[in-house]
Amino acid sequence: MKLGAEHLDDLALGSVFLATGGGGDPHVPKLLTSEVLKRIGPVDLIAPKDLPDDAFVAAIGNVGAPTVSLELLPSDDEALIALEAFEKQMGRKLDAVVSFEIGGGNSLIPIMAAASRGIPVVDGDGMGRALPEAQMMTYAIRGVPSTPAMACDYASNVTMFTTKGTDVYERHIRALAMSSGGMITTVEHGMSGADVRGAIIPGTVSFAMKLGAFLRENRGQAPALFDPLKSLFETSIYGECRLIHTGKVVDKSTRIVGGFDVGNTVVEGFDPGSTPVEIDIKNEYLLARRGDQVLASVPDLIVIVDFETSEPINAERLRYGQRIAIFAIGCPDFYRAPDALKVVSPRNFGFDLDYVPLEALPN
Amino acid sequence: MKLGAEHLDDLALGSVFLATGGGGDPHVPKLLTSEVLKRIGPVDLIAPKDLPDDAFVAAIGNVGAPTVSLELLPSDDEALIALEAFEKQMGRKLDAVVSFEIGGGNSLIPIMAAASRGIPVVDGDGMGRALPEAQMMTYAIRGVPSTPAMACDYASNVTMFTTKGTDVYERHIRALAMSSGGMITTVEHGMSGADVRGAIIPGTVSFAMKLGAFLRENRGQAPALFDPLKSLFETSIYGECRLIHTGKVVDKSTRIVGGFDVGNTVVEGFDPGSTPVEIDIKNEYLLARRGDQVLASVPDLIVIVDFETSEPINAERLRYGQRIAIFAIGCPDFYRAPDALKVVSPRNFGFDLDYVPLEALPN
Repeated sequence: MKLGAEHLDDLALGSVFLATGGGGDPHVPKLLTSEVLKRIGPVDLIAPKDLPDDAFVAAIGNVGAPTVSLELLPSDDEALIALEAFEKQMGRKLDAVVSFEIGGGNSLIPIMAAASRGIPVVDGDGMGRALPEAQMMTYAIRGVPSTPAMACDYASNVTMFTTKGTDVYERHIRALAMSSGGMITTVEHGMSGADVRGAIIPGTVSFAMKLGAFLRENRGQAPALFDPLKSLFETSIYGECRLIHTGKVVDKSTRIVGGFDVGNTVVEGFDPGSTPVEIDIKNEYLLARRGDQVLASVPDLIVIVDFETSEPINAERLRYGQRIAIFAIGCPDFYRAPDALKVVSPRNFGFDLDYVPLEALPN
Repeated sequence: MKLGAEHLDDLALGSVFLATGGGGDPHVPKLLTSEVLKRIGPVDLIAPKDLPDDAFVAAIGNVGAPTVSLELLPSDDEALIALEAFEKQMGRKLDAVVSFEIGGGNSLIPIMAAASRGIPVVDGDGMGRALPEAQMMTYAIRGVPSTPAMACDYASNVTMFTTKGTDVYERHIRALAMSSGGMITTVEHGMSGADVRGAIIPGTVSFAMKLGAFLRENRGQAPALFDPLKSLFETSIYGECRLIHTGKVVDKSTRIVGGFDVGNTVVEGFDPGSTPVEIDIKNEYLLARRGDQVLASVPDLIVIVDFETSEPINAERLRYGQRIAIFAIGCPDFYRAPDALKVVSPRNFGFDLDYVPLEALPN
């Protein structure tokens, strides 16, 4: 399909939902992308199956602490400078770009970059949600080397990484982001069309648009939306959708630790005397508990939406006093396989807890 | 001259003296360099005036917190991998290499690299001592761009930087060093022979050897050495040499802060009741004070030697209970010019203090 400026509101809305709190604020990336699409015309959104085996594709997006995305506003320079340096280094033009993660700003940056370069963007992403670290991407899990990779900061400084593993790469880009104001744009995971097909979570860009359209058309009190939303997810690559809590944010605190937003939020139920729900945050909403009871955990999706409007709320915009609803959604099957759980289970985030799929947790 | 394995003991000894506490421990770099020089033969130590104008030269050395050099032992791999990546990126072979700083390990690494590649090493360095940050180098002060630069870590991960200023470059390499175990090797400041001549502190490699030979031949109680040492410096590019204190280390504390060793040491005089001397450290010994009285400050050299043997002691080896003598030596004229003092005055290190040349301070 052709993806034009008219699709961006829905895409941004749906991808903030799927971002589970992370992915960065979409507002400025949406304005930038819209401007590019209006100027140049719509971009081709290409299904992974339509990529030639030998197409040359790379993943592009922003790396850093999402809170920074509210202050250190992105421009299109970083993406285009990083892309150009990447192609120069590899000695080959890219045939398409693909997202790190279907989340907030990081859903839009590949579209802006693709449109500017006149190449397609792949319908799918490397997480099926947002996750904080590079080695958690499907491309890395399937063994695609993350480097050579190019990073560009807000002042157009360019850094090239050649590392022997994605865990080292993650440490290096995080350090660079921290020493560059908190956010950088990277082009990485250069791969063939065949590699993309073997690794990607397919269809998430078009699904995010569909989800965004649903949220826009059904704007209203979140609990009333629950049944149709459940149906929407039932026919998707995601698992079960549950409404796990409604209430008021009575505490929210994150700090930038090691280049991530790290902290938690406490959400009191509307019923007086009910046990509040606590959510741990590392860029994304990772673990939801009511007392000792786990309600949902990474890699399943924990999504916070405004109680009145159902608008999804990223962690960097979550505030004391907001009335919210919390949904949990089973992650795509990719992340429930042992090779993926090796890098995205609750233990990888420091929780002393094995992953239990949402569907096996008490409702 | 030809610089062979037989010169390395004197060079290491003299360059630890000139390192004013920093530059990294020379022990392992000396063993590595010695092995290379014995295997390949001596290296050409070339005077800056003998470099062709259009020779292609780069600076090479280790970047990080010197304490790390005692634990994360250097190998010759990092230097050779970084050199090769640098030449590949620049599309040109290097005609010679030059030191960042005449200090500890960083005096030896360029020799090892030059010998391995069969090219000369330049007699001189970019500091005339050791200093903690890249923008403090003569090459940077004279406007030589620090990048493209290549960094290699202990695990052979390679990173290329292209930054718009040496202050940003410094921040980026420091972040990489911190995220790579504390120490990296960089090849940077690619320049012509003419550039080298316009920026370098000349003759410091051969002077370090001469100084090392003097210390070896006159091994003994530091105060007894003072007069001949003063004479040696009088005929050098350095300023006045003073013995500013003798005593015992009663406190020494450094922590790794932002990738540097930061802290201080307190040295009680041998006379009971005398006011102790305190020295502030950021990799190097930066400021020596007795109470409110400044005895010496950066960019002048503050040198700590063992009281009994006159062996210079790097900051990472300074310990409680050591009996020491403290020398202060005027820095080369280069660092007393306004453009250099803009980046190496005491204020650049956070001291609320203007630079006063050693010769103008009360003795």
